[in-house]
Amino acid sequence: MFIIYCITIIGLASFMGRSTESLSIVAGSSIGGLLNATFGNAVELIISFFALKEGLIGVVTASITGSVIGNLLLVGGLSIFVGGLRFKRQSFNVHNARHTAGILIFAVIVSFVFPAVFATKMDPTNINILSTVVAIIMILIYLFSLLFRLVTHRGVYKEPGEEEHVHEEKPEWGVWKSIIVLAVTTVIVAFISEHLVGAIKPVAESFGWTELFIGVIIVAIVGNAAEHASAIMMAYKNRMDVTVEIAIGSTLQIAMFVAPILVIVSWAFATFMPLVFPVTELIAMVLAVLLTISITSDGDTNWFEGAMLLAAYIIMGFGFFLL
Amino acid sequence: MFIIYCITIIGLASFMGRSTESLSIVAGSSIGGLLNATFGNAVELIISFFALKEGLIGVVTASITGSVIGNLLLVGGLSIFVGGLRFKRQSFNVHNARHTAGILIFAVIVSFVFPAVFATKMDPTNINILSTVVAIIMILIYLFSLLFRLVTHRGVYKEPGEEEHVHEEKPEWGVWKSIIVLAVTTVIVAFISEHLVGAIKPVAESFGWTELFIGVIIVAIVGNAAEHASAIMMAYKNRMDVTVEIAIGSTLQIAMFVAPILVIVSWAFATFMPLVFPVTELIAMVLAVLLTISITSDGDTNWFEGAMLLAAYIIMGFGFFLL
Amino acid sequence: MFIIYCITIIGLASFMGRSTESLSIVAGSSIGGLLNATFGNAVELIISFFALKEGLIGVVTASITGSVIGNLLLVGGLSIFVGGLRFKRQSFNVHNARHTAGILIFAVIVSFVFPAVFATKMDPTNINILSTVVAIIMILIYLFSLLFRLVTHRGVYKEPGEEEHVHEEKPEWGVWKSIIVLAVTTVIVAFISEHLVGAIKPVAESFGWTELFIGVIIVAIVGNAAEHASAIMMAYKNRMDVTVEIAIGSTLQIAMFVAPILVIVSWAFATFMPLVFPVTELIAMVLAVLLTISITSDGDTNWFEGAMLLAAYIIMGFGFFLL
Repeated sequence: MFIIYCITIIGLASFMGRSTESLSIVAGSSIGGLLNATFGNAVELIISFFALKEGLIGVVTASITGSVIGNLLLVGGLSIFVGGLRFKRQSFNVHNARHTAGILIFAVIVSFVFPAVFATKMDPTNINILSTVVAIIMILIYLFSLLFRLVTHRGVYKEPGEEEHVHEEKPEWGVWKSIIVLAVTTVIVAFISEHLVGAIKPVAESFGWTELFIGVIIVAIVGNAAEHASAIMMAYKNRMDVTVEIAIGSTLQIAMFVAPILVIVSWAFATFMPLVFPVTELIAMVLAVLLTISITSDGDTNWFEGAMLLAAYIIMGFGFFLL
Repeated sequence: MFIIYCITIIGLASFMGRSTESLSIVAGSSIGGLLNATFGNAVELIISFFALKEGLIGVVTASITGSVIGNLLLVGGLSIFVGGLRFKRQSFNVHNARHTAGILIFAVIVSFVFPAVFATKMDPTNINILSTVVAIIMILIYLFSLLFRLVTHRGVYKEPGEEEHVHEEKPEWGVWKSIIVLAVTTVIVAFISEHLVGAIKPVAESFGWTELFIGVIIVAIVGNAAEHASAIMMAYKNRMDVTVEIAIGSTLQIAMFVAPILVIVSWAFATFMPLVFPVTELIAMVLAVLLTISITSDGDTNWFEGAMLLAAYIIMGFGFFLL
Repeated sequence: MFIIYCITIIGLASFMGRSTESLSIVAGSSIGGLLNATFGNAVELIISFFALKEGLIGVVTASITGSVIGNLLLVGGLSIFVGGLRFKRQSFNVHNARHTAGILIFAVIVSFVFPAVFATKMDPTNINILSTVVAIIMILIYLFSLLFRLVTHRGVYKEPGEEEHVHEEKPEWGVWKSIIVLAVTTVIVAFISEHLVGAIKPVAESFGWTELFIGVIIVAIVGNAAEHASAIMMAYKNRMDVTVEIAIGSTLQIAMFVAPILVIVSWAFATFMPLVFPVTELIAMVLAVLLTISITSDGDTNWFEGAMLLAAYIIMGFGFFLL
């Protein structure tokens, strides 16, 4: 059953990749990547919602951590590596890269590290208040970032000649066909993902793996299969702007939208989830962000930089496995 | 009384802003910003001096922390936000931005984090020796930075066309009038500030606020009102080089000049002040520096980047309030 | 004896500098710097090997830490300072600088910080497994980086006009003479270094210094004398690409090759050396990397930036001395 689930998801992910690709050609890199990240993370939001309902806070923070490091290091690293094997140098909009670098530092380093450090000196009630405040501010800034990109500064940071590139390719499917395929496959992927996660646990525990490892690594790899497939496909076609948008945009959606929504939703449940990550998960996310920023900030990637990101992911995978 | 003090300071701050603006048009962006930072921080040095004399080390470190995060996140953020509402993109000298980024990392991250970490493994006598050594080196590097900017490398990093911009505007006041207004208002602001701080404490305690919150947030906001007014005014006039100079230059003066001077001066008092910040204040300063650097390093700002800096300030404000 | 050893090494280092310079003119900046780093670090590998054999793990980690901060802050800082006194601005390939910045973050920040944080939550057996895994991955990435620079992307990131510069100068010695001089002096330097280290210890202990201070500061200064001499010479000749290559390349070799090799080799000895640095050494390395990256990332240096690196080294030297 486990293998069947995996193959089904990978098959569906390729459909999602093709429809996202068609849409992104029509809509431009930014919105195409945004659509992709949204559909990919809907799955994770649903899974986390049910885990939260059952009070499994450790599983939720682990799956957020896993999505952050998985998107940045695994999805980003594999795409850059595969793209780099085909093209000597791949470049993308350096303004976008620096813009998202700033938001990554705000979302992961400021909003996650600050409450975690202050929580060590606070009583539980105040930790919950601070978590709620930070969550509300993060969602506001996330909405502002959409307003900024799609309304006030749409196309302001485009580099000359970037539009032409978009018209070079023809979409495989029409807009409506793409949207319907994307919507249907997302629902099926979400449905199967949940069963898959349910199937992984007993299987995995018979292998002697910890819940933390399953949350951080297995759930994240399967949950991000869709982004994974599209990001690599785009890198292989040298459309690095979309690849970077998927890997980093998806991370930002998890950190600035999924995580704070879960914090706020958890007020309705028996156990409140404070925005306080364990130090191991925090350091993994901070290191992933620093490495990603240092590699993408020059708007140019190659196979070696992809290999470094993958190496960091493998190190972290072993770390969580051995914990 | 509290409200009268505040209004007086804000009124005086507008005079300081106008005279600084006049001077900066004559003297060029760098020296204009430098003058502003010096006059703004004289107030803080005097207040801290009296706090130190009474052995209130916690208040002094809190006010240094508050000035650092206040200048970078509140003054910088509000200026960039307000300027960004009027102009789509605002740009400034990217060489200066990177130069000051390096000094920020030296001043806040190296010079403040290093002694704090080493202090956890040291006995008190050695902590005091290390603090003194670091303080002396910081002052030397601060003096070197003045030598570098005003003597050896004056104008070396100017971008082509930057001088012309300076001649576009005419100063409102003459040089001497500006200097006299600046000097007189600074003295009055210093005088009132001290009374204001004395008035805040009893008022604030009746509201149930902690001394830490007052030191980090209230003292810093009032103490930096002058920089605040000028920085926003300059951003509104699209003179971002002066705005960045005020926000970051003021931070550097606090970190590299005011803080080490207080450490050295404290040898003369009953209680020595080691250069060891509490972990909460340290993390707030480090996060503020990292976010500021990531936002200013491309020499280009917009309203969204200002909003992120402000959001980080609000998060930190709540953090210190709830501590 | 102590003074004689020092003078001999400095004399030999000047020969090494001259032969490396001749070779680097023939072979180009990258390979010239690579040769230099290799020969300089052979000495450190041999010294650490004997220390490890005797179970002195603290001395080995201290000497790795000392080499990292010594190469980045002392060698790099002094070169940039001395070069900056002669030339107003010195520039180097900005692509190389950013490329090595990414590797520095991978090597020092990810590979050293991650196991150290996870080790606090792990049992000793798993720490050793994680250390071995990280060590193997680091060596692989190091070999990949050589493959990248010397095979797949040789000259890809060269800036226009860079080749011409190489042909401007004529090598002082022929290729074979340079290689022989380099090889012979390296062997003698290695031989003397060991005796010197043996002589430093009793001498130093009579001065009341700690083993940590000797490992971090004294061993590293003497062990890096060769790189030191060549790097400063190159900076003085305005060949900053070679200087940066020596300072950062040497650091990367220590962190990504010497350190993991020692971890793997230590399985053969009585005491296994995990890749877990004490928090004081870790913070020193992380701060040195952050400061170096912020200063070199714009491909432009001056005397003031060199002075900041040196100031950071002096602060750290006092820190380890007082510990």
